Amino acid sequence: MSALARQMSFDLAGEGTHVGGYAPLRQALAAHLRTARGVVCEPRQILVVSSTRAALSSLCRLLTSPGDRGLVEDPGYFIVGRALADFGLEPVSVAVDEEGMVVTPSLPAARLAYVTPTHQMPLGVRLSDRRSAELLEWARRGDGWIIEDDYDSEFRYVGQPVAALQGSDTSGRVLYVRTFAKLLFPSLRLAFMVVPKTMAKALERAVFLNGHEPPLHVQAALADFIAEGGYAAHIRRVRRIYRRRQELLVDELNRQLHDIVDLHPPSGGMNIVVPLPAHIAAETVQAEAARQALHVRPLSYYAQRLAAPNALHLGFAALPERLIEPSVRRLAAIVRGLDLDR
Amino acid sequence: MSALARQMSFDLAGEGTHVGGYAPLRQALAAHLRTARGVVCEPRQILVVSSTRAALSSLCRLLTSPGDRGLVEDPGYFIVGRALADFGLEPVSVAVDEEGMVVTPSLPAARLAYVTPTHQMPLGVRLSDRRSAELLEWARRGDGWIIEDDYDSEFRYVGQPVAALQGSDTSGRVLYVRTFAKLLFPSLRLAFMVVPKTMAKALERAVFLNGHEPPLHVQAALADFIAEGGYAAHIRRVRRIYRRRQELLVDELNRQLHDIVDLHPPSGGMNIVVPLPAHIAAETVQAEAARQALHVRPLSYYAQRLAAPNALHLGFAALPERLIEPSVRRLAAIVRGLDLDR
Repeated sequence: MSALARQMSFDLAGEGTHVGGYAPLRQALAAHLRTARGVVCEPRQILVVSSTRAALSSLCRLLTSPGDRGLVEDPGYFIVGRALADFGLEPVSVAVDEEGMVVTPSLPAARLAYVTPTHQMPLGVRLSDRRSAELLEWARRGDGWIIEDDYDSEFRYVGQPVAALQGSDTSGRVLYVRTFAKLLFPSLRLAFMVVPKTMAKALERAVFLNGHEPPLHVQAALADFIAEGGYAAHIRRVRRIYRRRQELLVDELNRQLHDIVDLHPPSGGMNIVVPLPAHIAAETVQAEAARQALHVRPLSYYAQRLAAPNALHLGFAALPERLIEPSVRRLAAIVRGLDLDR
Repeated sequence: MSALARQMSFDLAGEGTHVGGYAPLRQALAAHLRTARGVVCEPRQILVVSSTRAALSSLCRLLTSPGDRGLVEDPGYFIVGRALADFGLEPVSVAVDEEGMVVTPSLPAARLAYVTPTHQMPLGVRLSDRRSAELLEWARRGDGWIIEDDYDSEFRYVGQPVAALQGSDTSGRVLYVRTFAKLLFPSLRLAFMVVPKTMAKALERAVFLNGHEPPLHVQAALADFIAEGGYAAHIRRVRRIYRRRQELLVDELNRQLHDIVDLHPPSGGMNIVVPLPAHIAAETVQAEAARQALHVRPLSYYAQRLAAPNALHLGFAALPERLIEPSVRRLAAIVRGLDLDR
C-alpha cells in the first residue's frame, strides 16, 4: 500500500536494495582495486561487510563444516585462530620466515588457509613468488580456499608495489579480504571481500542472513570519497606520514641501540620488528616499559602454538614525529638497563 | 610504541574499547527501556549489534547446536526461519491467532522460540497474558530460550501500553531484541539485545568474533539523540503521524469497502490486515494491483508452512495522507471488479 511512494527511487534509507553492498561503492572499489592492487573483478564479486571478522564469519558459514582445518600464520593475527575455533574449525599453525608463511609441498591438507601475503602480520615480510605459486597449487590440488587478507598493502615505502595474490589466481581459489580499519579508522566498521563469480550470489545471501552489512550511508560516503579522488589523496598523504615516521624511528633505533639490536629494514607498514639478543627478553622490556607508560609489544603477543622470535613489535601509527626521539630514548634506557643486569 | 598517544583517552576512532556497544549508548538505552518498555536491565546486559539478523546469528552461535529446533510464528517474519535453517537449525512453525502465537501446554520442545509478543508480525495482535505465562513456563520447563523481538512496540495507538515480556521473566530465559530499522531507518543498521547478566560476557565475545558491531560514530550519534530527548520526541512525532494515517486508512476502507471487508480495528503498527471473502483471493488482488503500480501484499507472503488467512497486509509507513483516499479508491475498484467476476 506504499503506493506511489514506492515508485520514487528508493533512497539511502531503504532496505532490500544494495544487498551485498552499495552499488556505486562496489563499482568504485572494482576500479580502484584493478589499478592499485592488481585485483581482477567485476563489481558484483565485491561484498561489502562490517569487518574482517564479519568476512571470515560469512565465509566460514558458507564454505566450512565443523571439524575442518584452517591454516593460520604463527605468529599472526591471532583473532583469526580464535574465530576459526569458535566456528568449530581446527586452527593449524604454520610458521613464518623471511619468505612469509612457510608453504612447502608438505603443507597439511586443510579447508582453508588465512594468509597476509603482501605484508605479513606481524613480521611485515612478503610471501615470496615461489611460496605464492606453491600456495596456489596447494589450494588447486586439495580444493582448499586461500583467504588473502591484503593487510596494510598500501603502506609500502620501498621497492616495487606488490600485487595481490588474487590477481595471479587462475583457479578461483583466492578469497580477497580487506578492511578500512587501518586506512581510515577501526570504528568505521567497513571492510570488503572479493570472491569468484560463482560464489558471489551465495555469499550475498550469507552476508544478509548473518547481518554483516554496514550502514548504507557510510558506504555512500566512502563511494563518493573514492570517486572524487579523496581516497587516493588520503592514501598518498598518510603513506608519506608513515614513511617519514618509519625512517625517523629506524634512524633513532640505529643511532641509540646499534650495538644491541640488528634491525632488518622494513619495507612498509605501521610497525617495526626489533630483534633482541637472547638475554634481553622482549616480555621483560614490555613489562618495564609499561611501568613507564610506554606501550610496546613482544612479538610473542602474536604467537599461537609456535614460539616467536625474541623481538619487540613497535607500532608507530599513533606516534607523532616529535615523540619518536624521546620514546626511543626511554626504550633504549630500559633495554640498556636489562643488558647490564646480565 | 604508541607511547603517550595511548595515554590520551581513546576517541571514537579507536578499537578495543566499547566492545559490546558504546558505553553511553548502553546507559541511555537502559534508562529508556526501563520507562518506555518495562525492560529491567543494567547497561552491561545490552549488546549493540548491526541488525536483528546479526543478533540472531550471534545468539544462535552461542546457544544452539546444529539440528536444534527453533519455534517460529507462522505467518511471521520469514527471514528468521531462513536464518535458522541456514544456521543448521530446524525451524518449526507455530500458528498465530487473535491471542498471538498459539502457545499451549503441548508446544513442542525446542531450543528456542522466536516471538513478537507486543505486536505480532504480521497480524498485529498481542500475545495474551495467559499465553505469555505459558510461554515463560515452557522455557523454564525445557531450558528453552525465548527471543523476544519487540517489533513496532512504540507504535501502539489505543489502550494501555504493553510492557515487554522481558520485564516479567524471572528465570532469565528471555533474550530481548530490538531494531532501529523502523524507528529510524533500515540502512542505519543498528539494533540491540538485552540478555541475562550471566550471558553478557560470552555474548560480547560472540558479537566481536562474528563481526556484528556497528560503527562507533553511529552509536555515539544515537546516544546523544536519546540523551538530549530527540529520540523520545521523534517517537512521539512519528507515532502521531502513523496513528493519523491508520485512522484515515481504516475510515477510508470502511467507507469504500464496508460491504465486502470486515476490518478488525488494529491497535498499532504501520500495517493493517484486511480480511477478504473467500471468493476474492488476496494473491489475485496483489497481481491486479501490481499492474496498476499499487503495491499491496497478501498475508500469505509471510506464510511459511501453514496456510495464512485470505487477507491483504497493507503498509502505510510510506503512504502520505494525501495518497490514502486515492489509493483506497483504486484498491476498492480492483476488489469490486473481482467481486463481480464471481
